[in-house]
This record gives sequence, structure tokens and C-alpha cells, in this order.
Amino acid sequence: MSLKMMNRTTKITGLFNIRYPLVQGGMVWCSGWRLAAAVSNCGGLGLLGAGSMHPDTLQEHLQKLKAATSRPFGVNVPLFYPEIGAIMDIIAAAQTPVVFTSAGSPKTWTGWLHQRGIVVAHVVSSALFAVKCEQAGVDAVVAEGFEAGGHNGREETTTMALIPAVRRATALPLLAAGGIGSGRAMLAAIALGADGVQIGSRFAISQESSAHPAFKDMVIKSGEGATMLALKKLSPVRLLRNEFFAQVSAAEKQGASEPELATLLGKGRAKLGMFDGDLVNGELEIGQVAALFDDVPTVSDIMSAILSEYETARCEMNNLSL
Amino acid sequence: MSLKMMNRTTKITGLFNIRYPLVQGGMVWCSGWRLAAAVSNCGGLGLLGAGSMHPDTLQEHLQKLKAATSRPFGVNVPLFYPEIGAIMDIIAAAQTPVVFTSAGSPKTWTGWLHQRGIVVAHVVSSALFAVKCEQAGVDAVVAEGFEAGGHNGREETTTMALIPAVRRATALPLLAAGGIGSGRAMLAAIALGADGVQIGSRFAISQESSAHPAFKDMVIKSGEGATMLALKKLSPVRLLRNEFFAQVSAAEKQGASEPELATLLGKGRAKLGMFDGDLVNGELEIGQVAALFDDVPTVSDIMSAILSEYETARCEMNNLSL
Repeated sequence: MSLKMMNRTTKITGLFNIRYPLVQGGMVWCSGWRLAAAVSNCGGLGLLGAGSMHPDTLQEHLQKLKAATSRPFGVNVPLFYPEIGAIMDIIAAAQTPVVFTSAGSPKTWTGWLHQRGIVVAHVVSSALFAVKCEQAGVDAVVAEGFEAGGHNGREETTTMALIPAVRRATALPLLAAGGIGSGRAMLAAIALGADGVQIGSRFAISQESSAHPAFKDMVIKSGEGATMLALKKLSPVRLLRNEFFAQVSAAEKQGASEPELATLLGKGRAKLGMFDGDLVNGELEIGQVAALFDDVPTVSDIMSAILSEYETARCEMNNLSL
Repeated sequence: MSLKMMNRTTKITGLFNIRYPLVQGGMVWCSGWRLAAAVSNCGGLGLLGAGSMHPDTLQEHLQKLKAATSRPFGVNVPLFYPEIGAIMDIIAAAQTPVVFTSAGSPKTWTGWLHQRGIVVAHVVSSALFAVKCEQAGVDAVVAEGFEAGGHNGREETTTMALIPAVRRATALPLLAAGGIGSGRAMLAAIALGADGVQIGSRFAISQESSAHPAFKDMVIKSGEGATMLALKKLSPVRLLRNEFFAQVSAAEKQGASEPELATLLGKGRAKLGMFDGDLVNGELEIGQVAALFDDVPTVSDIMSAILSEYETARCEMNNLSL
């Protein structure tokens, strides 16, 4: 075994055939072909977020993405998606090299995807589900902590507590997600036992993200405590505090039932907020780490900053013996 | 400036005059003289938890602690404590070298303690309060994330998101707390920008902890998702799920008011659970990281394991270049 092979991060770079063990999360209303192509072209793995795409939209994004990069890329697919069969057929027809599945059982599609030569990662929020992923034959797990934006686990386990638990439970290649928006956080995740990272929020607030500029602007002006987990009786989701969040929060404090919350939520709130830019009535999904963002850089600048900070902090460890 | 002085962790070891940048949290019903002495004797900083002590109890613990160690030690004092004046007088009379304050304004006692030659650290859950600590003249801050056991911040910021935010806001020596129960987590916290760590739960579940054996046993048998933040309308506290938690949780889901929750909580629940061992009706405070604990080791074994794992993981970073 060569020294290079001993590097834990090559579990990820080797699996996806990418240069850096860094995946860009496939986020609804943010992760279109421009974002994914930019990340893949910088040596990470760019993902389309199929969760906010109709089949024909996904097909268009896949075509444009393939024209914009010759590097590996992937698609994130929430498994509860109603048109899941059509989505998977389009993914396979486009010879997509990697699929990240979430929000469902990893058993359902892993075999089908493997038969078509597609590498499969599954997103989990517990060690219990990481073990189920291993049993289902997935190739890698993403363990996502409580601090992450958007949909979130019921156990509320944070990245700091989750990564060691998942690392202990499975030998699968492991990507850490949640709270990671810098090179130092990437190093911390790898110190905890991850083989690489999935970064969402930092890329949601980039030039290439398809989110509405008003949403990006609101995020960079937000500070600590600006996000909170909401709608726990339905499906927990981390949202930026706005008028819609305030209504949900007030209803929850008064003990609103599941059907009452579902009515209040209605349909299309995430598109309304993140894509259409209605900052009052929309659902604004972003992670806690966004409190640290002051700007809307290009993907290239984000990648350079994260990778160079990782290397600086990694070398600094040589001076931190006890 | 010597190489040794360039080590960030010496901000902590120099300030407290200890060997390792590792502080044992001063936890109610767990942190008596046996625990604090054992940690200080192993080269960390042991703290008494004055939050669960009457003044005469604290005096007795200080006397026994001083007889049991010649190393520096400290006391954690929640500032809302009703007999705070008597507590502080006893601390000063015992020539206590270090005080950790929490749950109140750092302005109130820092000057008084400094006049008596006592080093002061204050526990915060936000960068905003870390800045207030700096303005109040405290010597160090403990930034404690959402995953920590016991009382907890309203912003729900996790350690992974909190440490970089506090690091950016202040140049004060910074201890990370919450989710840290291993050498890898200690390294991760330092990678994020902390100068050292405060570890609670791991020491709560040690031989020398004064917690009831039945509580320790319940913790080591618990798994992921076993703790949850409760009583957010009063003062958020992370508890192990038991019958008392179930009652609180059911009341909260039905929109129970602050006075209703206060009545349900009553008085003395933490003592009942953690010290008297009533696992049904007691309040059982522990952090998320306890899901990883399978045993009740001695402090000496805990310290050795954490410090050697830190060094192993730190050296491993040399093989993890990008």
C-alpha cells in the first residue's frame, strides 16, 4: 500500500474520481447546473439538487452541466419525490456518474443504480441509518448534523457528536455535513473521523447558486441565532427567521397540531423564498454556519479559500503537541 | 518568542498554570472534590461545581480538594445563585486560583475576583456574549455548544458553528465545550480555533464523579438520540429521556405555559435524578456525546485516553494533505 493510498481522504477522491474530498450539497433552488459545474471544474464534486426540479428541468440541467464540465458530477435525489421513476431514468440516461439519495430507504434504489454503474451515497442523520446504508450496499454515507440548513434529523445530533458515532458504526467512506463552511471546519470534520466533507450553505451563497439575490443578501446580513429548527411535528427543517418562521414558531408554542402546521406551511414556500425572493412569506433554508458569511463569492474563490485554510490549519497542528 | 510560546494551547496552560489545555466542567451533582482533585492531579484543571452546593458544603469540598492536590484547581459558580456573596467569600478565603462563572453578567464579579488575584473564565453560548466577557475583563471564555448537557443557550448554536464565530469575535483564550469527549473531538475543537477544551459529560461518567451509580449506568446504556433540549420556555436544558422528560415533552407539545412548566419542574429534580438516583422522576443532565460512552473509567484512564488519542490524530494530520 502506497503512502498516497493510506490517506483517508482518498476513500472519497478515489470513489468519485475527484481531486479534493469536497462535495457541494445538492440543495433545492440553489444547486443548478452553473453551481455544480463550477464546483466540479474546481476539483470537487458538484451536485444538482433534483428535489426542486421537474423531470424536464432536471434533464435540461444535466445537459447543460455535461456541456460545462468534463469532470465527475452527481445529482441529489430525495427519495420521497413523487416522480422518482422518471427522475431516475433521466439520471441513468444522462450517464450520471454519482447519485446522492436522501429522505427514504437506501434499499429502494441502490441496486438499480449500481446495475447502471452509478456510484451511490446516502445522507443520514444517525449511526443507526449509516448501518442500514452499509447493509443496503451504498458506496458512501453523508452524516449531516443538526446545524445543517434545510431538512434535518429528529435526533438533533450535532456534527461534533454525529461523526464519531457514524465512524464507529461503519467503515464506509464518510462525508461530514452540517456546520462546515471553512477550511478549519473541514479539518475538524476530518479530525473527527470523516474522510471528506459535504458543504451546502457556503455554496448556496455563491455567485453561481441559483438562489434569488435577495435571499443571498439576507443571509449575509444575518448573524448568530438567525436560524432555528422548525416544523418538528411535520419534518424538522432549519430556517432563517423571517415573518413566515415567526408565524410557525408562534403556532408551535401554542401547541399547533400536525394538520394545522401543514395548512400553515401550504405548498411551494421554499421556491417562494429562496428562488422567487419573497423574504417575508417564503421558507428560507440555510445552515447555522451562514452567520459567518459576509459576502457572495464565486465558487472558485470559495474553493481556494477553503482548501488553503485547510492546508494552513493542518500544518499548524504540527505546533500543537501537548 | 520561543516555539513553545507560539503554541496556541499555551494560552490556556499558561493562564491556569496547568500541563494540558483541558478543563473538567464544574457540573452540578457530579463535580465534587474527588473528581476535581483527580483531574488536577493528572495535569488538567479540575473544577468544583458550586451550583449544587450550599456554602458550608462548598467549604468542605474546597478543604478536601486542597488536601488532595497541590495543583491548580477552580470552582464553577452560576451567578444567579441566591447565596452568591457567601459562596464568593468562601472561594476567596480558600485562595482558590481560578473561578469559572456562568449564567449571569460577567461584569458583576470579575473585578472583585481579580482584586483577590483570582483568574476568571466565563461560560458563553454566543459570540455576542464572548465580546461582553472581553469588555468585562475576564481572562478566558468557554464557548459551549448546543450538544452540551445541562443548561444551554437559546440560539442553539452547535460547537462546530460556535467556535469559529467566537474565535472571530475575540482574541481571549478560548475553551471549546459541548460534544467533546475524546481526543479526536479535542483536536477538532482546536482545529476550529479553540485554545483548549472543557469536558463535562465524560467526567460526569467517571469513577470519581459524585453522581449516583444508577445514573452513570443509565447513561452508558443510552444511545444516540437519548438526550433532548427541554424546558425552552423556562431555561433550555439538555436531558436524558426518562419519564420526567416524557412528561415535560408532552406538556410542551400541547403548548404548556411557562408557569405550568415551572410547576411541573418543581424543585430539586436534578439532585433527585443525578445524586439520589431516581431515574424515573429526576432531571438527568448529560450531553449528546454520552451516546459514545460504554464504561465508567477512572479519571486517570480518561485523561490518558483523550491525550493519547489527541496526539495520534494530530500526527495523522501529516498524512492528510490535499
